[in-house]
Amino acid sequence: MIIVMHKKATEKNIRTVTDKLEKEGFGTHIIRGVEKIVIGAIGDRKLIPSMGLELMDGVENIVPIMKPYKLVSREMKSEDSLIDIDGVKIGAGNFTVIAGPCAVESREQLLTTAAAVQSGGGTILRGGAFKPRTSPYSFQGLEQKGLEILAEAKAKTGLKVITEVIDSYSLDMALDYVDILQIGARNMQNFQLLRQAGKAGKPVMLKRGLSATIEEWLMAAEYIMSEGNYAVILCERGIRTYETATRNTLDISAVPLIKRLSHLPVVVDPSHATGDWQLVTPLAKASLAAGADGIMVEVHPNPMQAMCDGPQSLSLKKYQCMMQGLKPLAEVLGRAM
Amino acid sequence: MIIVMHKKATEKNIRTVTDKLEKEGFGTHIIRGVEKIVIGAIGDRKLIPSMGLELMDGVENIVPIMKPYKLVSREMKSEDSLIDIDGVKIGAGNFTVIAGPCAVESREQLLTTAAAVQSGGGTILRGGAFKPRTSPYSFQGLEQKGLEILAEAKAKTGLKVITEVIDSYSLDMALDYVDILQIGARNMQNFQLLRQAGKAGKPVMLKRGLSATIEEWLMAAEYIMSEGNYAVILCERGIRTYETATRNTLDISAVPLIKRLSHLPVVVDPSHATGDWQLVTPLAKASLAAGADGIMVEVHPNPMQAMCDGPQSLSLKKYQCMMQGLKPLAEVLGRAM
Amino acid sequence: MIIVMHKKATEKNIRTVTDKLEKEGFGTHIIRGVEKIVIGAIGDRKLIPSMGLELMDGVENIVPIMKPYKLVSREMKSEDSLIDIDGVKIGAGNFTVIAGPCAVESREQLLTTAAAVQSGGGTILRGGAFKPRTSPYSFQGLEQKGLEILAEAKAKTGLKVITEVIDSYSLDMALDYVDILQIGARNMQNFQLLRQAGKAGKPVMLKRGLSATIEEWLMAAEYIMSEGNYAVILCERGIRTYETATRNTLDISAVPLIKRLSHLPVVVDPSHATGDWQLVTPLAKASLAAGADGIMVEVHPNPMQAMCDGPQSLSLKKYQCMMQGLKPLAEVLGRAM
Amino acid sequence: MIIVMHKKATEKNIRTVTDKLEKEGFGTHIIRGVEKIVIGAIGDRKLIPSMGLELMDGVENIVPIMKPYKLVSREMKSEDSLIDIDGVKIGAGNFTVIAGPCAVESREQLLTTAAAVQSGGGTILRGGAFKPRTSPYSFQGLEQKGLEILAEAKAKTGLKVITEVIDSYSLDMALDYVDILQIGARNMQNFQLLRQAGKAGKPVMLKRGLSATIEEWLMAAEYIMSEGNYAVILCERGIRTYETATRNTLDISAVPLIKRLSHLPVVVDPSHATGDWQLVTPLAKASLAAGADGIMVEVHPNPMQAMCDGPQSLSLKKYQCMMQGLKPLAEVLGRAM
Repeated sequence: MIIVMHKKATEKNIRTVTDKLEKEGFGTHIIRGVEKIVIGAIGDRKLIPSMGLELMDGVENIVPIMKPYKLVSREMKSEDSLIDIDGVKIGAGNFTVIAGPCAVESREQLLTTAAAVQSGGGTILRGGAFKPRTSPYSFQGLEQKGLEILAEAKAKTGLKVITEVIDSYSLDMALDYVDILQIGARNMQNFQLLRQAGKAGKPVMLKRGLSATIEEWLMAAEYIMSEGNYAVILCERGIRTYETATRNTLDISAVPLIKRLSHLPVVVDPSHATGDWQLVTPLAKASLAAGADGIMVEVHPNPMQAMCDGPQSLSLKKYQCMMQGLKPLAEVLGRAM
Repeated sequence: MIIVMHKKATEKNIRTVTDKLEKEGFGTHIIRGVEKIVIGAIGDRKLIPSMGLELMDGVENIVPIMKPYKLVSREMKSEDSLIDIDGVKIGAGNFTVIAGPCAVESREQLLTTAAAVQSGGGTILRGGAFKPRTSPYSFQGLEQKGLEILAEAKAKTGLKVITEVIDSYSLDMALDYVDILQIGARNMQNFQLLRQAGKAGKPVMLKRGLSATIEEWLMAAEYIMSEGNYAVILCERGIRTYETATRNTLDISAVPLIKRLSHLPVVVDPSHATGDWQLVTPLAKASLAAGADGIMVEVHPNPMQAMCDGPQSLSLKKYQCMMQGLKPLAEVLGRAM
Repeated sequence: MIIVMHKKATEKNIRTVTDKLEKEGFGTHIIRGVEKIVIGAIGDRKLIPSMGLELMDGVENIVPIMKPYKLVSREMKSEDSLIDIDGVKIGAGNFTVIAGPCAVESREQLLTTAAAVQSGGGTILRGGAFKPRTSPYSFQGLEQKGLEILAEAKAKTGLKVITEVIDSYSLDMALDYVDILQIGARNMQNFQLLRQAGKAGKPVMLKRGLSATIEEWLMAAEYIMSEGNYAVILCERGIRTYETATRNTLDISAVPLIKRLSHLPVVVDPSHATGDWQLVTPLAKASLAAGADGIMVEVHPNPMQAMCDGPQSLSLKKYQCMMQGLKPLAEVLGRAM
Repeated sequence: MIIVMHKKATEKNIRTVTDKLEKEGFGTHIIRGVEKIVIGAIGDRKLIPSMGLELMDGVENIVPIMKPYKLVSREMKSEDSLIDIDGVKIGAGNFTVIAGPCAVESREQLLTTAAAVQSGGGTILRGGAFKPRTSPYSFQGLEQKGLEILAEAKAKTGLKVITEVIDSYSLDMALDYVDILQIGARNMQNFQLLRQAGKAGKPVMLKRGLSATIEEWLMAAEYIMSEGNYAVILCERGIRTYETATRNTLDISAVPLIKRLSHLPVVVDPSHATGDWQLVTPLAKASLAAGADGIMVEVHPNPMQAMCDGPQSLSLKKYQCMMQGLKPLAEVLGRAM
């Protein structure tokens, strides 16, 4: 249920409505758009008619939301959400490039990569400090040390940084170092982690699960938003299908479909989607053309020696080349990059 | 096995080599590229070393092909194949738009659509005269009558025409009317039909099977080429996955991957891939950006009343709008449209 | 639409009803069960109320069928269909074992196998004479020669024989030699072939397509039945999924589900479903326990040297062993084997 | 790497070997089978040859394990693992029935169900106290209260109890009440939770992820075992495929395949696999016939009013009926039930 407030509604009007709702057992969420303010009310919709909300000062009208996701939905907020991290913007017409290695391996590896990411036009640096690995015996990441290296790269280049968190321990630790928390495909329905991310006070990038439907993915975002964190970025990273010629199957249709269903920004990760660096540049262009709000790509100074995901990583030179190819495309499509 | 001939090899040299190969039981295929001529030899490769081919006049060198597909492979022919139908070009840098209704329903419906397709910049008209339907009780197409209407539309507009053939009967009948034969997803491994198309002497568009791997798809193209018909166009139309938010899942990665593996042109059908007209334009753009050689889209004067696939059909106006959006993109990407 | 006739309805009553229906443009199918006779009427159901059928002699009542498949459906015929080929029974409480090599390779190979199949308790011999192969360069079967060998094996052992037909040519040829025509997974929606099989006057085993839904599969059976051939056997042979540990994924749930939706017999092919002979016996037992009407398994005198599908073939000894394991299970389940 | 010890090796011999391994940085795991004792050594296998292990007292031989999973593998332990919870046995020839409602809803609901489960021959009671729900707004379980009801049912009936844990909080809480911890499909790769379960000192049932490969699933079990908890039960619950006629697709082939690859017990959950109670009984039989070590089924006193998963729940009467059908089958298959 959404309560749309008049443009001229006062803070007191809003407070009165939310108090009323909460008294009746509803959860409330105030979403402040450019043109209007709406109050999302999550609870038993059968109670609404008898509450007299439409008579309260400042209330313009009351709209039910038919979709199982509420805060996430385009019905709740018709404008694109814009996430602005000290000037680095995601969503609402921008095309944001997030790049970096799969894992932080060493200070030198990351600083070299970071310098190249920035000079090529990327604005956010990725790098895994905690790696969720299929085998308990594989390299699990540099953890604290990796976070420190990320912070140093940030200080040196001005790039924002993102890293994956895989449990409460890593989330708590990462909060002090990074700008965006990433929740990986395997944790898309780790509801405890989603709730914790919802309380973290930092933007969250939520990757689609390996075989998650679009609705399940949006419901996972709803978990984060329902805790009050509205800065959620969705990341399409390929789904699991019968086709083995690529590591996963990039579901490019998800991009325009989600732009219709939700106000949240969507980025694409062509590196994980394909597992093949030769496919990254054409799919980065396709993502931009399909309406994605950005891409996340793996870049490594020496892909042949990467500790993980080497075959899908762009070399620094190939990354520059991809960026050169994307810029004129962004321009003709009217996207800021 | 490929026998690469010297640039200066004579027709007689070539003949001598193919005669030798055929005497030993090999099938031979002469592929004439701009820069060189190669002879594809299909047969028992163990015989090659003892045949002394490398000593014959005009022979430059001998190259094994590791892939199960031979004539289809990029190894056999390094340049892009160009299919030129009286000036309408597919492949090799062109971006070709094929548009029209799912089924030919009436003379008026098709002529109206054809005029719009042409004025918007499409060069090939699609329209089904034979419909392979899941139910034996559904509309199966206008057959002969539909072909006549297609021919009339061609005469009136100068568009080339394509129609699906579903068996030997429809293939024979269509040959007199259309420029390109389409083999649908359900028939991708109908080997009798593939062989017949290989002998038909007209270009063939081969759609990917609903759950065909890329290798199986290329092997199906090999069936057509192995009969001597080298004018094959591949069409990605979405694969079957667990996701139900779209009718199929467009495998956009297939486009750059096939451009690497094969010299054949690849077009994308975003209408069948998604089943949702609102997704057609963004995915048409994505296909162009990913390197596709064209698109095939469903257009109908009145999608609400279409006899099949209405929800995925663009209205004539929406089609024009899509074409306006594609042109500047093609330009910046250096593609002729 | 089904017209259920009184038990005492005469042939003339039935004829009058079908004549009436056909005059109004309906296709009619008479299904004679043990307890009642029903007339299936395929056509525009809106015409029915005005036709006065319920007043005609011998008509008990009129029942609409909601499913898209009609003749196939359990609504049309509540008893299990029994297919009886000179005493070899499929369906209606029997558990029928079809066994033999993937391909007929030689007279000796087939006769050896046939003798073993029979002595172990199998009643139908399989053997491919026409092989639909992914590659145009692979072994395509012994064709006519293979059929002759099958006929000889039948004469020697008394087994019934089944072979796959892949097009009109092979279907025509096979009709003179075999008892059951098999339509393979790749041809499940080859509608021309389905229609031809519907007119062939012999039982047809229809394999499920690689990624066919159960509804599509039943609709394909409807194509055959709609031509008047009611002796259709469905064969579950695994579907294509993301899992690569087995060749396909046996959809065992399809067995009880189809028993609910349709009166047709269902057999399971655990050899193609798994591609692994070690899994054949446990899955044969599972199929029996799940309610399948039989199994089709690959057996070869020397699996290591089979021309195709060796890894999934049981040796003659392993086949005997499987049969020993199935018999007590069939007994406790009350199934004739 | 496995170090196989002589039958007569003393505890001191074993200790000396493990000390040596640990000094070189290996993790060690002692697996005591009926016939022999093996020491699993996880670490850098290149160090082994120089360590002189084969010369140490009590060492019989040293065997590398090629599979990525080690402790889980049949190579490590050739006999079936038996999990014995105060006389309730899982694995090694037993067929164990776990039954109960999807969620604990009330004291009455659970006690009624528990009495029926026991009288029908089930030995373990399931019931969700913590429900991982797609929507943050759905019923999330009775938590502590639910656990108390489970404990009461256990006390009253003598059944063992199992409940799903979804995070560290619920795991800690459940430990005091239940006999087996269940890790659900969505958490199959929640590595933090797996590790915590590995330290919990109670048997763990690990459900297969919605689109997990068999190898990924076994690797997830390896996480638990690598923490020293060897009492792991695998549960096949259907995988996600394109087929929508059932909720998931039961991968019955996984049962015999895992029995070959691993010594761990495997049970099947036909309720979640199909989402359709009518399919539960035939698939329970199929699971038994395929070699599963047990089943887990949903049973509810009033499926029409269940708070979750009603359509897939057996009524108490239908459960009794299923049990009657399974017993003679188990007997003929030589399984204790």
